[in-house]
Amino acid sequence: MEYYLDNSATTPVCEQAITAMTDALVRGWGNPSSLYSKGVEAEELLSEARENVSARLGCRSEELFFTSGGTESNNIALLGTANAMRRYGRRVVISSTEHSSVDETATKLEESGFEVIRLKVDGNGRISEEDLYRAINKNTVLVSVMAVNNEVGTIQPVKEIRRAVKSAGSPAIIHCDAVQAFCKLPLLKPSALSVDLMSISSHKIHGPKGAGALYVKGGFKKDRAGVRVSPRTFGGLQESSLRPGTEPVPAIVGFGAAAKAMPNTEKIYPRIEALRDYLLSGLSAIGGITVNSPTDSLPYITNISTGVNSEPMMNFLSSRKIYVSSGSACAKGHKSYVLSRMGLSDAEISSALRISFSHLTTTEDVDMLLQGIEDGKKSIRTA
Amino acid sequence: MEYYLDNSATTPVCEQAITAMTDALVRGWGNPSSLYSKGVEAEELLSEARENVSARLGCRSEELFFTSGGTESNNIALLGTANAMRRYGRRVVISSTEHSSVDETATKLEESGFEVIRLKVDGNGRISEEDLYRAINKNTVLVSVMAVNNEVGTIQPVKEIRRAVKSAGSPAIIHCDAVQAFCKLPLLKPSALSVDLMSISSHKIHGPKGAGALYVKGGFKKDRAGVRVSPRTFGGLQESSLRPGTEPVPAIVGFGAAAKAMPNTEKIYPRIEALRDYLLSGLSAIGGITVNSPTDSLPYITNISTGVNSEPMMNFLSSRKIYVSSGSACAKGHKSYVLSRMGLSDAEISSALRISFSHLTTTEDVDMLLQGIEDGKKSIRTA
Repeated sequence: MEYYLDNSATTPVCEQAITAMTDALVRGWGNPSSLYSKGVEAEELLSEARENVSARLGCRSEELFFTSGGTESNNIALLGTANAMRRYGRRVVISSTEHSSVDETATKLEESGFEVIRLKVDGNGRISEEDLYRAINKNTVLVSVMAVNNEVGTIQPVKEIRRAVKSAGSPAIIHCDAVQAFCKLPLLKPSALSVDLMSISSHKIHGPKGAGALYVKGGFKKDRAGVRVSPRTFGGLQESSLRPGTEPVPAIVGFGAAAKAMPNTEKIYPRIEALRDYLLSGLSAIGGITVNSPTDSLPYITNISTGVNSEPMMNFLSSRKIYVSSGSACAKGHKSYVLSRMGLSDAEISSALRISFSHLTTTEDVDMLLQGIEDGKKSIRTA
Repeated sequence: MEYYLDNSATTPVCEQAITAMTDALVRGWGNPSSLYSKGVEAEELLSEARENVSARLGCRSEELFFTSGGTESNNIALLGTANAMRRYGRRVVISSTEHSSVDETATKLEESGFEVIRLKVDGNGRISEEDLYRAINKNTVLVSVMAVNNEVGTIQPVKEIRRAVKSAGSPAIIHCDAVQAFCKLPLLKPSALSVDLMSISSHKIHGPKGAGALYVKGGFKKDRAGVRVSPRTFGGLQESSLRPGTEPVPAIVGFGAAAKAMPNTEKIYPRIEALRDYLLSGLSAIGGITVNSPTDSLPYITNISTGVNSEPMMNFLSSRKIYVSSGSACAKGHKSYVLSRMGLSDAEISSALRISFSHLTTTEDVDMLLQGIEDGKKSIRTA
């Protein structure tokens, strides 16, 4: 048995996705851009996937553009928008706890002459609406705030951004990294949150690695009015030239199947909340553990500090086939800037663990984890 | 039965790739950046694929960086190099018949202040060495010439570039788009051709769509001397940060398995040449057909003009399940600039067909095609 509690890093691929991908590999291997039946078949597989994912996100299929993953979606959103909006102003506003694919990309924008405002977060990892209103001005061309933080699960007030942009008379495009929120956070619909761009990823919802998508409000057509975003890759007419290159059909097909197979977000939410509460009461019973996630975080993600260094604790748990992480997988174990910007002490950061659920997580998984942490604390302390 | 003769657009996925991918989906779904065993397993799958592909290309595995495909590899090579080399000069030299992912990317460089020299090709689609020497000067920072043209199969004198660069005292980085050449053109080895960067793609060698690679001579480390190339995507430490974002493990694993499974390039070459000669003599027997590929082109690709418009001919062939194309799949049927730049007449261009082989192509495929073209010419002409 394995006890996988690192679903914010990646998720096991669901059967529906594997079956659909195998079919795409065996039968649907044509080039979707080819004009004969073999190509048309592959194009139909893409269309079906686009409908599955957009239905799930709550947008029109013409508004959804496939990419190679969340990182690429975020890069297109930031660099593509900044480039297209350059003549309207040079200020970009993000939160200070964005994923590295937003945070580092914003640094690149700084290097190329943009002013990047990183909104401070409080001890709960949340930006304040006041700061948001203060930061956005007439020169602001892009605001990018994640729906759910990947390390602590904090839900950001994304819906407020539109009001702040309007009240400032700003031309800013609003982007939301929803990689951790898609199929997990109720009411994520881009139009309901009033965002222009939204990034999502396949492998966080039990789809394969190698596919993601960028929602573009109203769609994207080269040289046409609408949300201003420039492609970052050139050559070829795929994805309306917003993201050219032969499409990763197998991964996209798996993404579509996974999106369709995910349980209803709203219906499953209470079960995940109950599981999180079960985890929290177990942790509290162990004692000496700090919970770094706010009480109203997305219940799929719980960040704690155990008082024992993350690495030996993770190794201890791993020896029992219990898998959690110390933070973002993309950071490969490097120190978390998210926890640091939330104001945690070095001791808390160096003993942090991120526990992340999926709808497949069971109380047995949580029981094993709790026992593992309890034993780990004793065993490592005395070592 | 289907008669697939469009292998330069894409290829059927081989069994070895499908098996390896299924294993990666079922068992190897961990995040390669995760530190516990589930992640290490996935990382090992990546390593194995990297060894398979680099062994096949004839480079060290540390010199191979996975991307989402050939288009992205070409984009990183051009934009990443131009950006990193900006202070050394502003001239970029390419051939005038590069794939759109090089040609259009070069146009973007022109828009951002670079001078792009597009070397003219002769009637065989070949650049001249004289022109190459003339175009490269001290301000030249990048030379990008494809190994094999995707529409006509012309083999370019890539090996000459290094001499031209040296004789000009140029700091230029040399890139070669080898997407159509990989596992097909003998002696492609990057060090033998003396190039710094080389692009290859999975789905042209019976691997899945969604993976490609960029060879970087000597490897890539951020802030380190070596081939100067900047990343185009930011956030995350994957692929030494040259191409961050969670790796498309299933596609990469399929790429590796396909590279390993491809027959020996040199050994199979005579059989492909014989098949091409068989095709050519059949075409000659039909009469009224112009061969647009040079006699010494890569035998996998034969471009012809049938005297009948490409679209009705392709439809006619497609009705018999014979699949060929009118040019690059990425152009989705748009008029070929490659043939135009080779000096072909509009009539020849509008009746062009690209026939492209793989090692799976049989004489039966060719027989069916020849019969189809002969019947098509009569049927469409009299229609």
